[in-house]
Amino acid sequence: MEKLQHVAPGDIETRSMEIIQSELGPTEYGALELPVVKRCIHTSADFDYGKNLAFTPEAVRTGVEAIKAGCTIVTDTQMAFSGVNKRVLEKFGGRAVCFMSDPEVAAEAKERGITRAAVSMERAAKLPGRVILAIGNAPTALIRACEMVEAGEFAPELIIGAPVGFVNVVESKNILEKTPGEHIVARGRKGGSNIAAAICNAMLYMASDNRRE
Amino acid sequence: MEKLQHVAPGDIETRSMEIIQSELGPTEYGALELPVVKRCIHTSADFDYGKNLAFTPEAVRTGVEAIKAGCTIVTDTQMAFSGVNKRVLEKFGGRAVCFMSDPEVAAEAKERGITRAAVSMERAAKLPGRVILAIGNAPTALIRACEMVEAGEFAPELIIGAPVGFVNVVESKNILEKTPGEHIVARGRKGGSNIAAAICNAMLYMASDNRRE
Repeated sequence: MEKLQHVAPGDIETRSMEIIQSELGPTEYGALELPVVKRCIHTSADFDYGKNLAFTPEAVRTGVEAIKAGCTIVTDTQMAFSGVNKRVLEKFGGRAVCFMSDPEVAAEAKERGITRAAVSMERAAKLPGRVILAIGNAPTALIRACEMVEAGEFAPELIIGAPVGFVNVVESKNILEKTPGEHIVARGRKGGSNIAAAICNAMLYMASDNRRE
Repeated sequence: MEKLQHVAPGDIETRSMEIIQSELGPTEYGALELPVVKRCIHTSADFDYGKNLAFTPEAVRTGVEAIKAGCTIVTDTQMAFSGVNKRVLEKFGGRAVCFMSDPEVAAEAKERGITRAAVSMERAAKLPGRVILAIGNAPTALIRACEMVEAGEFAPELIIGAPVGFVNVVESKNILEKTPGEHIVARGRKGGSNIAAAICNAMLYMASDNRRE
């Protein structure tokens, strides 16, 4: 018989975060970055996120302020969209959107021979108000977003660059790190929709002083 | 300027799988298990999935047959639900469901002092037809499912046990490995909604001979 820890449903996350903090030990991350780092480890049980996350100095503060101001979070997958805590986001008047399943986006991508993810970013650039990009899958989305920022066609508050994989993923993150503006990047090959959503959620919980409801 | 690989959108996954195969090298996984292993690495860039996945001998074959017979895939998170390729699943007459956002499930969980995930599994046990459980988050879901199997109250075709985290996660997977029936388990702390969905998708693509549409 397995011995289970008796932890009330509402306390599981608190206990998990204590374990993560204890095993992570001291890091060079600041007080604003650490909750983001810990939430990425919480969603993956992968302590590589204790060293591969890089932040511009104002990234988290800017992200939290954008959330408080009711920004739109644009994801590049339905999975990341599902993972973002929309209840907290909507409390601030914000919303999450994902253009990937839009048939018009698919049609335009096919016609132009580019990815749906890249077309999605062009849609994001046309949104009114403050935008956070949360990219957890497609390097082509990240690269297109960076091109538009460089060209002065898009000014998101924050770009979360966490594509995962093996083809142009590391390269897309290197491009992001050279692009002006605030960003949070999962360096290397790792990342994913779960990581992009976890980074958003860490900032959402900071914006609401860690109250979930 | 970053040097990008010129790979057509439709060829990115093929190229990624070649890289994964090459870096993974020889493994002890069989021809049915390897596509599952590779898809988990594809979704996470984490080669730990090249060794932490365990399969009962008939797990993948049973899962693929269930998919071909139009089974219901029950997930324990909306994220895993989003990640499952429902277009392919529906081609076989199957469907994916997730009970986690059902207000009645939340109310019952609160009243009984258990998790929504555990109540969700009780709902799953009442579904007609063949069921695959894809658990990528909650150890309480996995433990409740195993209890019902042991009690003869639930007979899913396959249980995918990939909860992630630090509290009772490893223990829940140990329970699954001692429970009768077919399972695929991500041993240790790692797993997640992305991993649960990736395991489903690997079997979905096998069922459709790797044709996505």
